[in-house]
Amino acid sequence: MSDAYSEALIVQEVAPRDGLQIEKQWVETEDKIALIDGLSACGFTRIEAGSFVSPKAIPALRDGDAVFNGIRRGQGVIYVALVPNVKGAERALAASADELNLVMSASQTHNRANMRMSCESSLAGFGDIVRLVQGAPYPVSLNATVATAFGCPFEGRIDEDRVVSIARTYREMGIAGITLADTTGMANPRQVARLVARVLEYVPSTDLTLHFHNTRGLGLANVLAAYDAGARRFDAALGGLGGCPFAPGASGNICTEDLVNLCDEMGIPTGVDLQKLIALSRTLPALVGHEVSGQVAKAGRNCDLHPAPEYARAI
Amino acid sequence: MSDAYSEALIVQEVAPRDGLQIEKQWVETEDKIALIDGLSACGFTRIEAGSFVSPKAIPALRDGDAVFNGIRRGQGVIYVALVPNVKGAERALAASADELNLVMSASQTHNRANMRMSCESSLAGFGDIVRLVQGAPYPVSLNATVATAFGCPFEGRIDEDRVVSIARTYREMGIAGITLADTTGMANPRQVARLVARVLEYVPSTDLTLHFHNTRGLGLANVLAAYDAGARRFDAALGGLGGCPFAPGASGNICTEDLVNLCDEMGIPTGVDLQKLIALSRTLPALVGHEVSGQVAKAGRNCDLHPAPEYARAI
Repeated sequence: MSDAYSEALIVQEVAPRDGLQIEKQWVETEDKIALIDGLSACGFTRIEAGSFVSPKAIPALRDGDAVFNGIRRGQGVIYVALVPNVKGAERALAASADELNLVMSASQTHNRANMRMSCESSLAGFGDIVRLVQGAPYPVSLNATVATAFGCPFEGRIDEDRVVSIARTYREMGIAGITLADTTGMANPRQVARLVARVLEYVPSTDLTLHFHNTRGLGLANVLAAYDAGARRFDAALGGLGGCPFAPGASGNICTEDLVNLCDEMGIPTGVDLQKLIALSRTLPALVGHEVSGQVAKAGRNCDLHPAPEYARAI
Repeated sequence: MSDAYSEALIVQEVAPRDGLQIEKQWVETEDKIALIDGLSACGFTRIEAGSFVSPKAIPALRDGDAVFNGIRRGQGVIYVALVPNVKGAERALAASADELNLVMSASQTHNRANMRMSCESSLAGFGDIVRLVQGAPYPVSLNATVATAFGCPFEGRIDEDRVVSIARTYREMGIAGITLADTTGMANPRQVARLVARVLEYVPSTDLTLHFHNTRGLGLANVLAAYDAGARRFDAALGGLGGCPFAPGASGNICTEDLVNLCDEMGIPTGVDLQKLIALSRTLPALVGHEVSGQVAKAGRNCDLHPAPEYARAI
């Protein structure tokens, strides 16, 4: 029987990186390792486990080397490291990261604000990292993110031709994996369907990741639009951790357990154990020192039924 | 040019009723009136302005009569009152409500818990209200809600045949307007598309309303699925007010400004002024005494750009 929702949706868990990087409360290295090991036990095949950025820029993740060296590598799980430059890539390779994720914004202004360099300088640096990885002592895959692909908080609308062109440039440079990131939650499902269809002309769905934030409440609607358009891999953060410095109080990344619940309810296979995931998510408030935005960890699954009140049973 | 998103989406604002009814902090009558008047100025054509329920059952809305008598009636705006029984209907007619909304759950257990009677007793009461309205001294329209249409927190899955059958029964009784309510946020987009298509065989889209809660983060995804299936009218609450006693901490109704932002971004006409709506939503935390769950009032619209940091301008 043909079924529009029978193809698996791959969830790449990014809480250890994109989630924890903005947390003010220091998370101990051993707690980071326990979190990642807990995620590995939930059935993920891809986990962005940390970054190798300057400790001055992102102090919360300054222990990336110790984290990568301390985790138990799950069978068949790809542990991704975000790296901003050759120095970070060297550290990631020394820590045996399976995949390096590079980032450049489609918006020049956002790239200058986020990476402190022009897009041209970012691309030149990517070339250096590609060459480094080609000489690596073990097989390492490469992914590059087009940040602000659906809108920029400084520049506003982003030309879709430019996003497609950047994705093509990444591929031509030898970077197989492409992530389209809605860095500050400006995407809408109509735009997502259009841009995903265009990028899939150049990037196979097995190499494409969509990264949505729930800043304006549209994260899961955007996932479905992208899935309907042929995308199959999505970033999400446990508890909906993460956020945007330009939207204080707003949600961060789309929430992993909310996404997996959606897939479970619609019959889309993910391979992730929702019950374990919810239990792990409920440990987050103690870990980060505040409530998190995810809904399903609060509400429970649909199948977690409640007892009817006494008076109702007597009617 | 044909456009899948050119048809208007009608937003029925329900914060004054479904939102305020569970608030613990008493909202003064004059503040309720100011809120409704503020909503009328935003461009809504339908506002659920209050209920005529026993003050013991819902003390927060015990001033329904004074609220309906105090508001400024906007030109062409339909002010709806929720009524649980004939007594409530009489009060609503005395207060010149334009439309009465009746409620019964598809789940027997939920109806007993919520309405303290069986579904059969509820339907008998609906018959009495229909007769009362037929003799009303001014034209009054009728709507009836199928609560727990997409799932019940006590019983779990709800038979779709039963939901369709209840909608048909309502229509046969002389109740034109039908609302399918996802009372505790258990719906998923696939189920929504299927059930909306089935109900539209019996109910014209001009008479059908979808009422979604965001309990598990799927509210706006469900709206799009319903819109794609032909539904055109949706309940939403300013700030995402409302909630479910069985999901403490989880979101309530879908958030009006988040829905209008989605429509604005996708080009779906609503007739609602998003900027005014956001300004009004930002008054809610002071009114109800706590933060609310809506995202767009925190993050702003996409077009509300931020200045780039100084250092980025120098690169």
